[in-house]
Amino acid sequence: MNRKELIDLIKTKNSYLCVGLDSDITKIPNHLLKEEDPVFEFNKAIIDATLPYAVAYKPNLAFYESNGIEGLISLKKTMDYLSEFRDECFTIADAKRGDIGNTSEQYAKAFLDPSGDYNFDSMTIAPYMGEDSIKPFTVYKDKWVIVLALTSNKGANDFQFIRDESSKPLYETVMEKTMNWASEDNLIFVCGATQASMFQRIREIAPNHFLLVPGVGAQGGSLEEVSRYGMNKDCGLLVNSSRGIIFADNTENFAIRAGEEAKKIGLEMKNYIETYMK
Amino acid sequence: MNRKELIDLIKTKNSYLCVGLDSDITKIPNHLLKEEDPVFEFNKAIIDATLPYAVAYKPNLAFYESNGIEGLISLKKTMDYLSEFRDECFTIADAKRGDIGNTSEQYAKAFLDPSGDYNFDSMTIAPYMGEDSIKPFTVYKDKWVIVLALTSNKGANDFQFIRDESSKPLYETVMEKTMNWASEDNLIFVCGATQASMFQRIREIAPNHFLLVPGVGAQGGSLEEVSRYGMNKDCGLLVNSSRGIIFADNTENFAIRAGEEAKKIGLEMKNYIETYMK
Repeated sequence: MNRKELIDLIKTKNSYLCVGLDSDITKIPNHLLKEEDPVFEFNKAIIDATLPYAVAYKPNLAFYESNGIEGLISLKKTMDYLSEFRDECFTIADAKRGDIGNTSEQYAKAFLDPSGDYNFDSMTIAPYMGEDSIKPFTVYKDKWVIVLALTSNKGANDFQFIRDESSKPLYETVMEKTMNWASEDNLIFVCGATQASMFQRIREIAPNHFLLVPGVGAQGGSLEEVSRYGMNKDCGLLVNSSRGIIFADNTENFAIRAGEEAKKIGLEMKNYIETYMK
Repeated sequence: MNRKELIDLIKTKNSYLCVGLDSDITKIPNHLLKEEDPVFEFNKAIIDATLPYAVAYKPNLAFYESNGIEGLISLKKTMDYLSEFRDECFTIADAKRGDIGNTSEQYAKAFLDPSGDYNFDSMTIAPYMGEDSIKPFTVYKDKWVIVLALTSNKGANDFQFIRDESSKPLYETVMEKTMNWASEDNLIFVCGATQASMFQRIREIAPNHFLLVPGVGAQGGSLEEVSRYGMNKDCGLLVNSSRGIIFADNTENFAIRAGEEAKKIGLEMKNYIETYMK
């Protein structure tokens, strides 16, 4: 999906909601455990219920890998299912990969290559290893690299705010350097919603880039603040909610409740689009 | 495998060689492609030929993930095979993972949990997300977290050497902080062989920790320098070679040649153990 298509999708759905498919098999409703592939059945029902309100889906690889080979089969089935709605949603492999050049090439092939098992539109990357660890993710047409800048967790304070000799925090250097290696057409930054006070500064550095924003919901970030300070004329935001939607209910009504939660966030987003998208 | 067992293993084999199983299916010998699982057959032959000279094996996850589900099946078979030699080698998932706490827990479960599909002794982690991204890998008994400090690639210069306001480079802060979250009994640092001049400084910061050293061989690092400046009284090194061993030959003799290369490095290591291990 290219930038124009992503922006059009947001405008059509009046939403910038990303649903995080952190589909922990120990947390999905009990009645699904009798299915042959409980995680896939769970994801399929969540997708069906939330697709009118969501513009993106973000399977978190850890929750599939922790189920071993079976987990990856659930992931593949989920991506096969999502491929039926390729024009209706953007897909994100939340993988946090990154390695030396020849190895990052392999990770890019694994998750972005159209001939691979998953064919995601984008994937998340940790920046610590620098340019040659990031560039291999930028060569696929209409695919995106999503680089960690400012994360939503407590540990973000350990390294990301370290100031260099000119007083610039590390996350700003990460953003500035990375912007030399990719463009606003294929580079997104992760900026946690728990860091809403930083969004003005982030928009000074990267006014046009899309931001992937985790941390709304269970982690406590404010959607209103993120939207007020983070939105640009193309929206420029994909705000993720995982647990707050997919585990809103763990009875047979789980999908209906997930749809209701997504709809509620979608209505709030519609309001912010009208107010802040300029 | 605990620290004492790892040290004993190094002393018994007179080697600190780690064989990197970067088993790219496009580079393995042609005659193996007719096998049901070429990558597993390749790995099995490499392991059989190098086990007398190697103390560790490090499958690089990217080269398995790029083969999709099939690749992960090859990895599982490889780990099942290595489990037959559990006392004779240390295993490393070169995964470069790291995420918020509840997600890192899932990655730890995926690769370190004895009941999981892989049951590695250790795995590599990128530090950018800080404490709660690293701690979940430290809770498994006799398992290790291997944190990126100074990597062997060109991109290492982009962020890892950034000096903070007190002139301390980022990689040193990463090492110092991480040493508060785990001990020398379960924490290893990645320090690239291409950075041999830095090993004296690294040993000032972490005199007792094991270091995993990539970058010897194809990447150009010097085994002699790494050993001279990096070795401590317990050896404290695991030096990786991947392409230089596993792709030394791509005919039907590949395993014999891999064994010869491993033996050659092993003999060099025996010499350095006698000279520098004190």
